[in-house]
Amino acid sequence: MQEDDFIRSDGRKPNELRKIEFETGIAANATGSVLVSFGNTKVICAACVEKKVPSWLKSAVPPKGWISAEYSMLPYSTLSRKQRASSSGKQDGRSVEIQRLIGRSLRAIADLEKIPETTLWLDCDVLQADGGTRTASISGAYVAAKIAVAKALSEGTLDADPFTDSVAAVSVGIHNGRCLLDLPYSEDVDAEVDSNIVMTGSGKFVEIQSTGEESTFDSGQLLELISLAKSGIEKISALQQEAINKALENFPSQKKEQATV
Amino acid sequence: MQEDDFIRSDGRKPNELRKIEFETGIAANATGSVLVSFGNTKVICAACVEKKVPSWLKSAVPPKGWISAEYSMLPYSTLSRKQRASSSGKQDGRSVEIQRLIGRSLRAIADLEKIPETTLWLDCDVLQADGGTRTASISGAYVAAKIAVAKALSEGTLDADPFTDSVAAVSVGIHNGRCLLDLPYSEDVDAEVDSNIVMTGSGKFVEIQSTGEESTFDSGQLLELISLAKSGIEKISALQQEAINKALENFPSQKKEQATV
Amino acid sequence: MQEDDFIRSDGRKPNELRKIEFETGIAANATGSVLVSFGNTKVICAACVEKKVPSWLKSAVPPKGWISAEYSMLPYSTLSRKQRASSSGKQDGRSVEIQRLIGRSLRAIADLEKIPETTLWLDCDVLQADGGTRTASISGAYVAAKIAVAKALSEGTLDADPFTDSVAAVSVGIHNGRCLLDLPYSEDVDAEVDSNIVMTGSGKFVEIQSTGEESTFDSGQLLELISLAKSGIEKISALQQEAINKALENFPSQKKEQATV
Amino acid sequence: MQEDDFIRSDGRKPNELRKIEFETGIAANATGSVLVSFGNTKVICAACVEKKVPSWLKSAVPPKGWISAEYSMLPYSTLSRKQRASSSGKQDGRSVEIQRLIGRSLRAIADLEKIPETTLWLDCDVLQADGGTRTASISGAYVAAKIAVAKALSEGTLDADPFTDSVAAVSVGIHNGRCLLDLPYSEDVDAEVDSNIVMTGSGKFVEIQSTGEESTFDSGQLLELISLAKSGIEKISALQQEAINKALENFPSQKKEQATV
Amino acid sequence: MQEDDFIRSDGRKPNELRKIEFETGIAANATGSVLVSFGNTKVICAACVEKKVPSWLKSAVPPKGWISAEYSMLPYSTLSRKQRASSSGKQDGRSVEIQRLIGRSLRAIADLEKIPETTLWLDCDVLQADGGTRTASISGAYVAAKIAVAKALSEGTLDADPFTDSVAAVSVGIHNGRCLLDLPYSEDVDAEVDSNIVMTGSGKFVEIQSTGEESTFDSGQLLELISLAKSGIEKISALQQEAINKALENFPSQKKEQATV
Amino acid sequence: MQEDDFIRSDGRKPNELRKIEFETGIAANATGSVLVSFGNTKVICAACVEKKVPSWLKSAVPPKGWISAEYSMLPYSTLSRKQRASSSGKQDGRSVEIQRLIGRSLRAIADLEKIPETTLWLDCDVLQADGGTRTASISGAYVAAKIAVAKALSEGTLDADPFTDSVAAVSVGIHNGRCLLDLPYSEDVDAEVDSNIVMTGSGKFVEIQSTGEESTFDSGQLLELISLAKSGIEKISALQQEAINKALENFPSQKKEQATV
Repeated sequence: MQEDDFIRSDGRKPNELRKIEFETGIAANATGSVLVSFGNTKVICAACVEKKVPSWLKSAVPPKGWISAEYSMLPYSTLSRKQRASSSGKQDGRSVEIQRLIGRSLRAIADLEKIPETTLWLDCDVLQADGGTRTASISGAYVAAKIAVAKALSEGTLDADPFTDSVAAVSVGIHNGRCLLDLPYSEDVDAEVDSNIVMTGSGKFVEIQSTGEESTFDSGQLLELISLAKSGIEKISALQQEAINKALENFPSQKKEQATV
Repeated sequence: MQEDDFIRSDGRKPNELRKIEFETGIAANATGSVLVSFGNTKVICAACVEKKVPSWLKSAVPPKGWISAEYSMLPYSTLSRKQRASSSGKQDGRSVEIQRLIGRSLRAIADLEKIPETTLWLDCDVLQADGGTRTASISGAYVAAKIAVAKALSEGTLDADPFTDSVAAVSVGIHNGRCLLDLPYSEDVDAEVDSNIVMTGSGKFVEIQSTGEESTFDSGQLLELISLAKSGIEKISALQQEAINKALENFPSQKKEQATV
Repeated sequence: MQEDDFIRSDGRKPNELRKIEFETGIAANATGSVLVSFGNTKVICAACVEKKVPSWLKSAVPPKGWISAEYSMLPYSTLSRKQRASSSGKQDGRSVEIQRLIGRSLRAIADLEKIPETTLWLDCDVLQADGGTRTASISGAYVAAKIAVAKALSEGTLDADPFTDSVAAVSVGIHNGRCLLDLPYSEDVDAEVDSNIVMTGSGKFVEIQSTGEESTFDSGQLLELISLAKSGIEKISALQQEAINKALENFPSQKKEQATV
Repeated sequence: MQEDDFIRSDGRKPNELRKIEFETGIAANATGSVLVSFGNTKVICAACVEKKVPSWLKSAVPPKGWISAEYSMLPYSTLSRKQRASSSGKQDGRSVEIQRLIGRSLRAIADLEKIPETTLWLDCDVLQADGGTRTASISGAYVAAKIAVAKALSEGTLDADPFTDSVAAVSVGIHNGRCLLDLPYSEDVDAEVDSNIVMTGSGKFVEIQSTGEESTFDSGQLLELISLAKSGIEKISALQQEAINKALENFPSQKKEQATV
Repeated sequence: MQEDDFIRSDGRKPNELRKIEFETGIAANATGSVLVSFGNTKVICAACVEKKVPSWLKSAVPPKGWISAEYSMLPYSTLSRKQRASSSGKQDGRSVEIQRLIGRSLRAIADLEKIPETTLWLDCDVLQADGGTRTASISGAYVAAKIAVAKALSEGTLDADPFTDSVAAVSVGIHNGRCLLDLPYSEDVDAEVDSNIVMTGSGKFVEIQSTGEESTFDSGQLLELISLAKSGIEKISALQQEAINKALENFPSQKKEQATV
Repeated sequence: MQEDDFIRSDGRKPNELRKIEFETGIAANATGSVLVSFGNTKVICAACVEKKVPSWLKSAVPPKGWISAEYSMLPYSTLSRKQRASSSGKQDGRSVEIQRLIGRSLRAIADLEKIPETTLWLDCDVLQADGGTRTASISGAYVAAKIAVAKALSEGTLDADPFTDSVAAVSVGIHNGRCLLDLPYSEDVDAEVDSNIVMTGSGKFVEIQSTGEESTFDSGQLLELISLAKSGIEKISALQQEAINKALENFPSQKKEQATV
C-alpha cells in the first residue's frame, strides 16, 4: 500500500472516496426518500410500505414480509439518451441484475418476520450516471428505508423495525494495475477488474462480486481490493447514520409539511 | 368575476397560481434540464438532442427534424406506490395521452425544418404528484428545450433554434360551481369540469382540452375558464423567460463544470 | 359567417355535414350495433353488456357500473394497409387516446349507479377511414348503447337505463383560414386547426379538444368553430334519435330472429 | 346415404348448405373486399397489395411474392364478448392456427413467381360467429383476392394474376352418428368428429383436417365426410365465380367512385 | 403399391419407418419422461401432474381434468441456430399449431372426468430436428404420459388412469409423385403433399391433416397415404407398449433412485 | 481444515465434488454440444457459430466477435413444473442474471479479435436441477465451445481459436457453520452463505460471487470458501480437458455421421 502518492485524474488518492452526500426528503410523497451523490453519480432512492406480500410468501409460517427493489436509469442520466424500458417493452439484463442485488443486500440485514404481510419497496432511479450507480443505490436505499421505517412506526403502519444492522456498498477495481476505491465512469470503463462490495455497518460481508473484464485476477489482488472497500464502507456508514439522524430530528416538522400535500 | 374574495382550502384566491419555480440544471448529463414545481407538484424535465429522426420522416422533402416527448410517473410520486410501466410491460393509456399532448405542444411553436436529421427528446418524470402534472410538464419541457437548444448551438450540434415562440400550460376547472385556476389534486379529484389550456407566450392557443367529468358545461363557463387560464399562462411565461435567462447567463461556468463530469 | 357561398372540393358548403347514416343491427350477436357513416368514413359500433366491473370499482359505495370503449382501425380501412395491434404487440398511442375519449363521452351522460356490477362495452372498429373516425365512433357508440340498453332491459339483464341525455360529436377545423364542419381526410390532413367537439342532445359540452397542428389560434376562431360544431351536432342528434326509434320499433321481430342464431 | 329425409334443427337436410352469400365492395379502401355469409356466420374478407415481401423471401431466386393471412374475431362476434388480442397482448392459439390455414390454402392455388416483390394480404374479421368461420374465411378470401388482383392489374400494381385455380372450403362433421354438411355452432359444439375440407374449383384437395373431439373415427366415416364436403364445395365454387363476375362487371363505375374517396 | 423396390436416399423402402426408439427416464424430476427418436429427429417428452385446472374448467359439472401440451424447438436443434421464444417475446405460429395438435391428440383417448381438478402437462422439446418432430412428439408424449400416470397412481396423486386407448402419429407425404412413410427433412422440404396422421392403438383416426404445399391432391392419393400411415402407426404402437412395459417393470427401483434426488 | 471426517447427507466429505461427467455430442445439429452432470444436476450445453455480431459491435475497430449465452430451465427440470418464459412472456430475473454470468465467464478467456464478424452462442438448458446449475452450465459451456471451435476451424467457418485458457466453475457455501464444496439443492436451500467461483485452468479468478442469504460473513470464511473452490475447479478442469480430447479424437467419424443428418 505504498501508492498513496499516486494522484488520479480527478485529483483523488487511490484510497479516497468521491464526495458523498445524502439529501433526504427529495420525494415527499414516498414514505422515505433521499438523493444520494457519489461525486457526479446521483440516484433518487425512495422507500414505500405496501401492506401485501408476493403470492409465494402468502402462506409462510411464521408470516414474513418482503423487501423488493427496482432500479432504473432515467433516459437522460447518461450523456447519450437511453431508451426507456417502457418503450422497449422489457428491462435490460443489467437493470434486472442490479435490482436483485439491491433487494438481497437489504434483506441480508433484515428480520422479515418483524414486518408480516408487508412489502418494503425500494426504488432507485439514476438521475446522473458517472460510475458506481449500484453501490450508490444500495447505500441510499438503506437511508431511505430507515427513514420510511421510522415514519411507518410513528404512523402505526409498522409494528417493529426489521433492520438489525446497517448496509452500505462501494466499488473497487484494478486500473492500470493499481487498486482504486470508488471508480468514476472514466476509470470503470477500462478497469481490468471490477468489484462491488456490500458490507454491514458492523463490518461483515453481505455480498462480494468481483469480475475480470475480459481479464482475470489472483488472491492477493482480491484481498487488497476487499481491504480498500472495507475502509471506504466504514466512512459511508458514518455518513448514512448522520443523514438518518438529521432526518429524524426534523421528523415532526417534516410530518406537518407532509400533511398539507 | 366577483368571486375574488373566496378563499380556497390552501389559502389561494380562485384566480391565483400555486408557487411556481424552475430549478435548472437538475440532471447535468442531459443537454437541458429543469425541476419544475407547481406547488407540491414537481416534475423533472430533460431535453436531449439525438442526431436521427423516426423512420417515417427520413425521406421528408425538405428534410425535417422531430420533437418527441415521454411522460412517466415515478412509482413514489403518489401517496400509494404506482407500479412501473417496465414491470407491467406496457404504458397506461393516461401516460400515452399526456406524452402525445406534450409533444404536440412543443411542435406547435417549432419550425422543424430548422433542425433537419435531429430529434429533440423531452422526458418528463413526475417526482411528486399533486394535480396538474401535464401542464407543469409542458411548462418545464419548454424551459429544458430552450436551454438544450442554446447548449447545442454553442457546441455546434444544432445550426438553428427551431422555436418561434414560447409555450406554457395551466389547468383550470369548475369546482363546486366555481371557476378555479391551477387545481391541486384535492380540488381536481371532484371537479365538475377539468380543462388543460396550452398557449404561446404571444397569447395564441395551442391546445384546449375541456372535459366534463361525468358532467357537462356551457359556452359561458368555457369562456370564463379560458380567460382564467390566459391570465395564469401570462405569469408562467414570464417565469419561464426569467429561468431561461438566468440559466444562460451562467452558461460558460456551467459548461466548464459539465466538462469534468 | 359570410362564407356560405364557398364550395368545398366535395361540393359541400363550409357549414354542411357529410351524408350521415346509422344502419342498426349490423352485428347481430352484439346486444346493440350500428354501422355509422359520415360520408366515406364507416365505423362498426357495437355495445355489449358484461355483468362485472373493473377491479378498482368492485368495492365502490354505493355500487357503480362502468362504461369502457375500445377503438381500432381495421387493417384495410386505410388506402395503405395498417398493421394490426395484435401483430405489433401493442396499441398505438392514437388509438389509446381515442378510446379513452369515447369512454369519457358516454360516461358523461350516464348515471353509473343505475347499472351496478355491470360494464357496458363499446367497440368501435373503423371499416373505412376518411377523416372524423373518432367523432363518428362517439355518435355511433351512443346509438349502439341505447339499443343495447333497451334490449338488456327487456331481457332483464339491466334494471334501469343509465343514460340521462344523448351524446354526439363532430369535427371542425380551420383550413386555408376558413372554418369548416365535418372534415374529410383531404381537408383534415393540412388543416391549421383541428377540433373535436362532443355535446349532449340538450346542447351542453361534454368535451372540447382543439389543437393547432404545428400552428396556433385565437379566441374568435375558437368561438366560430364551436358554433359551427353546435349546429352540426344538433342535426346528428336528430338522426341518432330517428335511428334508435326505428330500431326499437322493430324490436320484437328482431328479438325473435336473434333467438334462432 | 339413405338419411336424406332427416331434418336438422334449422330445417336443413344433412347434405344441404346454409344460405351462402358474397357481398362485394364492403370495405372500399381495400383493393378487394367481400362480406361472406354462411347462414348467420358473417366474415369481412379484404385483400390488400403491398409492394414488399417478408425478409426471408427477399433473396429468393427466381424472385417470388407471398400471400399472408390474418384472422380475428371481432369482440362482439360471439354472444358473450371476447377480449381483443391487442388488450391481452397476444393472439390466441386458435386464431394463429386458422390464419396459417387460410394463407396455405390461397398459396396452394397460386404461382408466387408471378407476383415478385409483392405480398397479397388477406384479412378476415369475423363480424358474427355461428360455426364454420374458418371455411367461410377461406371461401371469402379467394373472392376478395381475385377482385384485388383484377384491380391491381388494371392499375398496373401487378403484372400477372398469380391464381391458377379457385379455392373454397366447407366444414363437415359427425353429429349424433350422422354425417352433416356445413355445421352451425349448435351442431359443431357437440359433434363427435369435426372436419374442414379445402378444395380447388377443379376438384382437387388442398387441405383436409379431420379431428375427433375427445373421440375417434374410421376410414368409412372419413370417406363419407369427404364426399359430402366435395358436393358442398362445388356449389360454393359456383357462387364465388358468380360474385367475382358481377363485381368485375361493375368495375369501371366502382373504380370511378373509389377515386373520390 | 408396386413401388416396393424403390430405394430412398437414406436406404429405406417407401413404406419403411426410420429407426424408432423410446429411451425412458431421461428427465428424472418429471413424473414421466422419454427421449423419442425417429431417425435423427430426437424429442424430449415429459409429463407432469399439476393439481389444478384452467380457470374456464373450474366449475365444470361433473368435474373434469385437462391435458395441455407445450412444444418448442431448442435453439440448437436445427443446423442454423433458432432464436428462443423467450427472446423474441412470443411463440411462433408453427409451434402454437403443433402444441394444440399434441394436446388434442392426447385428449382424444382420455376420459377427463377420471382426473378431476388435475392438469396433465406434456412438454415436448426438440433436441434434434430432422423432419417429423410433431409426430415424434405425439408418439413420445403418450409414452411419457402413461409412465406419469402409473407413477401418480402409485403415489396417490391420481385415483384413476384417464387413458382408454393408446395414441401414436406418423408423417406421410407425396414426394416426386411417390407416397412415402416417415419423411426426413430432406424429403419433407420439397414434398408435394405433406400429411400427419394420428391414430389410436385400436386403429381409429384421431386426426388427419393433409396439406398440399403450393400443390393439390386427389382422393386416391389420400387413401394411399392413409393406408401407409396406418401400417406405420401399428408398428409405432407396438414399440410404445414395449417401452412402457419395460419402464414400469423397473418401476420400484426407479422410484427409490428418485427419492434421493 | 480439520473437518475431513464430517460426512454430508449424500455421503460426501466437505471438500468432495459430486460425480461430474461430460457426455459430448448430445445435440448433433449444434456445432458443439455436451450433457454435463454434477451429480443429479444435468444441463445440455450447446455452442453454435453465427456469422454476425450484435449491432453495437458492428463498427468496432479493430473488428471483434462476441460470445453470448442463454440459460433456461426446462419446465420439467424441477420437481414441481416451472412455467416457460415463452408462456409468461418474459424471462425471470434469475435466468437473466445467470446467462449474463455465463457469457462474461467465457469472454474472460477469449480474445474476441480472433473471431471477427462472428458470434459464438452458448445455450444452456437445464434438464434436471439439483443445485449448482449455473456452475455446471459454465463448465459445460466451455467444453461445448471448444468442440465447436475445433469443428468450425476444420470446416473453415473460423480462422482462429479465440480461447487463451480454459474456464470452469463450482459452488461453495457455508451450511450449519461448515464450508462445503459443490452443494446439492438440499444443502443450498438453507446455506448461510452461497458462493459461485469461476476460475481459469491456470488458476486465476474470473468471477467471485459470494452472497449472505439473509445473513453475513467475514474475511476468514471467504478465504476458506475460495480455497475449497480452487481445489474443486482443478479437478473439473482436468475432466473438461479429458472430455474435449476424447471428442476431438473421434472427430473424423463424428463429422461423417453429421453429414448424413
